[in-house]
Amino acid sequence: MSELDFQRVSISGEGISGIPQQCLQDVSSSLVQALLLREKYCKLAMHSFPSTTAKYLCQVDDQSPEPTDPIMLKTTEEASSHPIHAPSNRENPFECEWQEPVDCIFKMEGGLIKVYDSEENVDKGQWMDLPYLDRETFLADHKLIHSTVTNEFIKSFTSRRLTCLQSRFTLHKMLNEVQELESQKSVPHRDFYNVRKVDTHVHIACGMSQKHLLRFIKRKLKTEKDVQVYYDKAKKKALTLSEVFESLNLTPYDLNVDTLDVHADSQTFHRFDQFNIKFNPVGESKLREIFIKTNNFIEGRYFAEIIKEVASDLEESKYQNAEYRISIYGRRRDEWDRLAKWGLRNKVYSDNVRWLIQVPRIYQIHHANKFISNFGEMLENLFLPLFEVTMDPKSHPELHQFLKYVSGFDSVDDESKPEGQAFTKDTPEPTAWTSSENPPYSYYLFYMYANIVILNNLRRKRGMHTFLFRPHSGEAGAVHHLVTAFLLAENISHGILLKRSPVLQYLFYLAQIGIAISPLANNCLFLSYPRNPFPDFFARGLKLSLSTDGPLQFHFTKEPLMEEYSIAAQVWKLTRCDMCELARNSVIMSGYEEEVKEHWLGLNWRKDGPAGNDILRTNVPDIRVAFRYETLCQELQIITNAIKISDDALKT
Amino acid sequence: MSELDFQRVSISGEGISGIPQQCLQDVSSSLVQALLLREKYCKLAMHSFPSTTAKYLCQVDDQSPEPTDPIMLKTTEEASSHPIHAPSNRENPFECEWQEPVDCIFKMEGGLIKVYDSEENVDKGQWMDLPYLDRETFLADHKLIHSTVTNEFIKSFTSRRLTCLQSRFTLHKMLNEVQELESQKSVPHRDFYNVRKVDTHVHIACGMSQKHLLRFIKRKLKTEKDVQVYYDKAKKKALTLSEVFESLNLTPYDLNVDTLDVHADSQTFHRFDQFNIKFNPVGESKLREIFIKTNNFIEGRYFAEIIKEVASDLEESKYQNAEYRISIYGRRRDEWDRLAKWGLRNKVYSDNVRWLIQVPRIYQIHHANKFISNFGEMLENLFLPLFEVTMDPKSHPELHQFLKYVSGFDSVDDESKPEGQAFTKDTPEPTAWTSSENPPYSYYLFYMYANIVILNNLRRKRGMHTFLFRPHSGEAGAVHHLVTAFLLAENISHGILLKRSPVLQYLFYLAQIGIAISPLANNCLFLSYPRNPFPDFFARGLKLSLSTDGPLQFHFTKEPLMEEYSIAAQVWKLTRCDMCELARNSVIMSGYEEEVKEHWLGLNWRKDGPAGNDILRTNVPDIRVAFRYETLCQELQIITNAIKISDDALKT
Repeated sequence: MSELDFQRVSISGEGISGIPQQCLQDVSSSLVQALLLREKYCKLAMHSFPSTTAKYLCQVDDQSPEPTDPIMLKTTEEASSHPIHAPSNRENPFECEWQEPVDCIFKMEGGLIKVYDSEENVDKGQWMDLPYLDRETFLADHKLIHSTVTNEFIKSFTSRRLTCLQSRFTLHKMLNEVQELESQKSVPHRDFYNVRKVDTHVHIACGMSQKHLLRFIKRKLKTEKDVQVYYDKAKKKALTLSEVFESLNLTPYDLNVDTLDVHADSQTFHRFDQFNIKFNPVGESKLREIFIKTNNFIEGRYFAEIIKEVASDLEESKYQNAEYRISIYGRRRDEWDRLAKWGLRNKVYSDNVRWLIQVPRIYQIHHANKFISNFGEMLENLFLPLFEVTMDPKSHPELHQFLKYVSGFDSVDDESKPEGQAFTKDTPEPTAWTSSENPPYSYYLFYMYANIVILNNLRRKRGMHTFLFRPHSGEAGAVHHLVTAFLLAENISHGILLKRSPVLQYLFYLAQIGIAISPLANNCLFLSYPRNPFPDFFARGLKLSLSTDGPLQFHFTKEPLMEEYSIAAQVWKLTRCDMCELARNSVIMSGYEEEVKEHWLGLNWRKDGPAGNDILRTNVPDIRVAFRYETLCQELQIITNAIKISDDALKT
Repeated sequence: MSELDFQRVSISGEGISGIPQQCLQDVSSSLVQALLLREKYCKLAMHSFPSTTAKYLCQVDDQSPEPTDPIMLKTTEEASSHPIHAPSNRENPFECEWQEPVDCIFKMEGGLIKVYDSEENVDKGQWMDLPYLDRETFLADHKLIHSTVTNEFIKSFTSRRLTCLQSRFTLHKMLNEVQELESQKSVPHRDFYNVRKVDTHVHIACGMSQKHLLRFIKRKLKTEKDVQVYYDKAKKKALTLSEVFESLNLTPYDLNVDTLDVHADSQTFHRFDQFNIKFNPVGESKLREIFIKTNNFIEGRYFAEIIKEVASDLEESKYQNAEYRISIYGRRRDEWDRLAKWGLRNKVYSDNVRWLIQVPRIYQIHHANKFISNFGEMLENLFLPLFEVTMDPKSHPELHQFLKYVSGFDSVDDESKPEGQAFTKDTPEPTAWTSSENPPYSYYLFYMYANIVILNNLRRKRGMHTFLFRPHSGEAGAVHHLVTAFLLAENISHGILLKRSPVLQYLFYLAQIGIAISPLANNCLFLSYPRNPFPDFFARGLKLSLSTDGPLQFHFTKEPLMEEYSIAAQVWKLTRCDMCELARNSVIMSGYEEEVKEHWLGLNWRKDGPAGNDILRTNVPDIRVAFRYETLCQELQIITNAIKISDDALKT
């Protein structure tokens, strides 16, 4: 443990957990088993798993500890001289390595894309050595976690532990707040405004503010009113921007934020459907198509322009960054190429922006529109181009370049929609899913995850970067979505439903799974601000970040991320230390490249505890990091000790 | 009543008020009497009193109605062609009329400045015909209101009425929300972003954001480090800016928002004293003196520069305005001249800014520092220069010019400080108040008000603009502060303690007294955000505006007023209509000139009900204004009817 000097609270005496020993052993075994399962899934997908937790798990798993983190602790001098600003990629953003092509054949089998090195091997059924997950294993693992989550004893135990964790944090703050603030003051130059923060969950289609979108539209109506922007299928002719507005009976002067009507309001609470309609400016899908689509009559030029304006605001702020979600639907095979071409043609790049691909869970719509006939086709459309470009970058040259800044995948849609059927061993395989119904949440997630696993392993072999799976989970709907995410996700967006399950909440804590919470978005859609579990989760030590979800719909000022922090700070009385901790978390859980994180957080950031913190960059006091670290260790100690005692008892 | 079409709720049947008839008559009489008293005090001070309320009062006061508002309803054409932007004063902001001097003599007598036209008349005790209030009347009136406020029957009645009002608003919203939003949409160009809003309560010493102040200091350290800025009394020499920072052991690079340490935090809750210390950057009064004082070694140049930067941000936003409080202490006679000279020398003017003079209630400190020997001197220092400049503008030429943009007075300090003694008929008169103790709140307010009354009447005679008295009241401390303000104030800042007194709350409603609430400031000092009565007050129809109080200490973004609106809108789920209503209220209750309000709100803005609303400027639907107006009329009807019934019964 660190030698850092601050006021610690220690709890001593027997029966530390408040439940009988035998009971504790059973409970602990279940929890450890759950964590080991997550560790397994993380390794398969090349997701991160916290080394602190891993160390404690080794002790009961009868494994020798994993080879330790190859990152050696850098010397103080080396670490402090490392620049805090990462080098810019702006000059040649899309320059990249072009790996030699490797011939191979891809086959969609059982919902997974299997890779063969020759036709011969296809016939023999000899696919390349890559981890192909079978769904039975997943279903069994899922069931096991689910039974842990619903076990009454484990519920009681974890509830108690969460309360304990919360009280400890309250005590910590009471005892060390002044010291924390003092150490922040002593850091030259650095304060909350100039520590890096990442908006870890924000959709680019609503990444601009309503005022910004309005201004942009008005400007275009002034400067490009005679440009043809839309093809009217009924009239069989292309319309100019002014013709489009004439057809809507709107003049540029008339337009205001109210007619634009994209902000969430009292009509959207618990109405995700109404909320989706808000994406259409003035309620007109035409305008959405013209201004916020990459693939339209003007080849997405306007959308690219407005994105670049948003990005330039971020650049001006210098320390604010965003991970924008942009859609791939899996409706057609050429979506990836079109997106990548759009990105490159318009030079959509900023040091302050990284991309996540969001896949809307709307198979039923593509199916109804006859784009696809089964779910397997959707998966093929989503993943095949990525396999191809991985084995031969030149096969989709723009995509290869664009992917440089794609850090992962998100799965999005209304979680509160009822799910027709559960995912069981009897559920048809993707190619056999020809029904007009939408598959359930866990089915979507499993097949996305399983293909990402294969893809990542292939990419690692090819010396390419891998992708993170960071789905929306626990915004609404069933709690078991969070069980799925616990196994399959690197980190998640929302997660507010963890408040309904103490067991999952405790497991998310022990596994330090990142959760990007957007209280303002929740407030408009599912959960009013004062009831948001954010402050409880934060106190208990869950790994939270704050994100905006969509400034277009939820925010009022020109600085949506700061607005999000400000409201949280005010309503929940966060200290400057809390705010900087959240900012640091946001960088850690982001998909920014490792090298960039080394600049922003310090060279040693992957180290456990205060050794991994560089207050000169993060403005987070070591005391805070030490408190979180020591508390986590003690918590892991309790459950792993209980198992060791029981093992020892068996041996003697 | 308006013919406007919307869903109204009407309540019919006998016993409408829910209490017995006799009881209702007594209660109503007391309430009416209280309102009549306020009306009297408003007239004396040339404050506004709502004509709707006045009309109902006339009916029971056996007076023929006052001559109606001289403003005739303008024709639609005339009204709509009136420009929405007021003409700018930027070219010659300090140009003004120079009234001929009139000889006269001022004497401080009984705490009031009495005006005599000749020495002869001084000897005869024949002062000019101006309203000189005697404090006995005030004390009697205050007592009467106080007994109304504490009467149990009136408490029950008003509680019920407030609940009624709140439910009616809920119903109104439920029934008319969509129609309200539709009418907002139909207004061309206008939306919440481009309706005028005034930050009705903000102190200039903390009018900039913490980040702005930090940047300003850093910039000065770069560009003016060798400028002498501070006279060190101990060393008997002037120090340059860099010497000052050397003496504090700080380099420009070191400085950050944390060391600046001006933001309110957990240490300031319920600690106004701690909060006041926060005014000192880096905890150093030296820096406060250099950067945020008008009267220092550099003659307030830095403070003027930073104020101009803040004002230019407002100008850029175009629709945001602020009424900054700036201090006159009453410690020395030349404070006014110094302030005015500072203002003129530095050309501190913006169309988006108006001034209120704040007088800190810190007699005890001036007395202890031997600036003054009695309270009368403080009053003389405060008011005499204003009387002099009124009778002879050339006697204080800069002051005469500066006053052009001073719209009134504020009284400020920690209301929660215990008050040594109550203000009674035995309390010494101001010149006899030689004690080292601080006088009570109502004593301060009475003597300020009484002198403002004389001054205003004199100024009106001289064709000069008059001043509004807009004190802080009901932020903390005793509820009776609000009784004082009910009588003496045009409108108030804070008022959150009205939640403790249903009677006062109801009276503030009936008299439509403006209340500038700053929930974020309250949240840091006295009342956590979720417990703020703002949403209840607003629903009940009290005349509220939102204000920031001090961005330096409470806000995080570059747009503090928008941040204030945003948080309120999010946490309390305000609609766009609510937000625009608040913005309109803020203009109405502001001290901006009548002509400016005619541009911003429309030519007919002083008219009752929807006739006074111009949705093209305010973006407030007529429906909302009609609802508020009709509800107020019905409420006034209930209490005035009860009295008329009782009068009629007496007559028959």
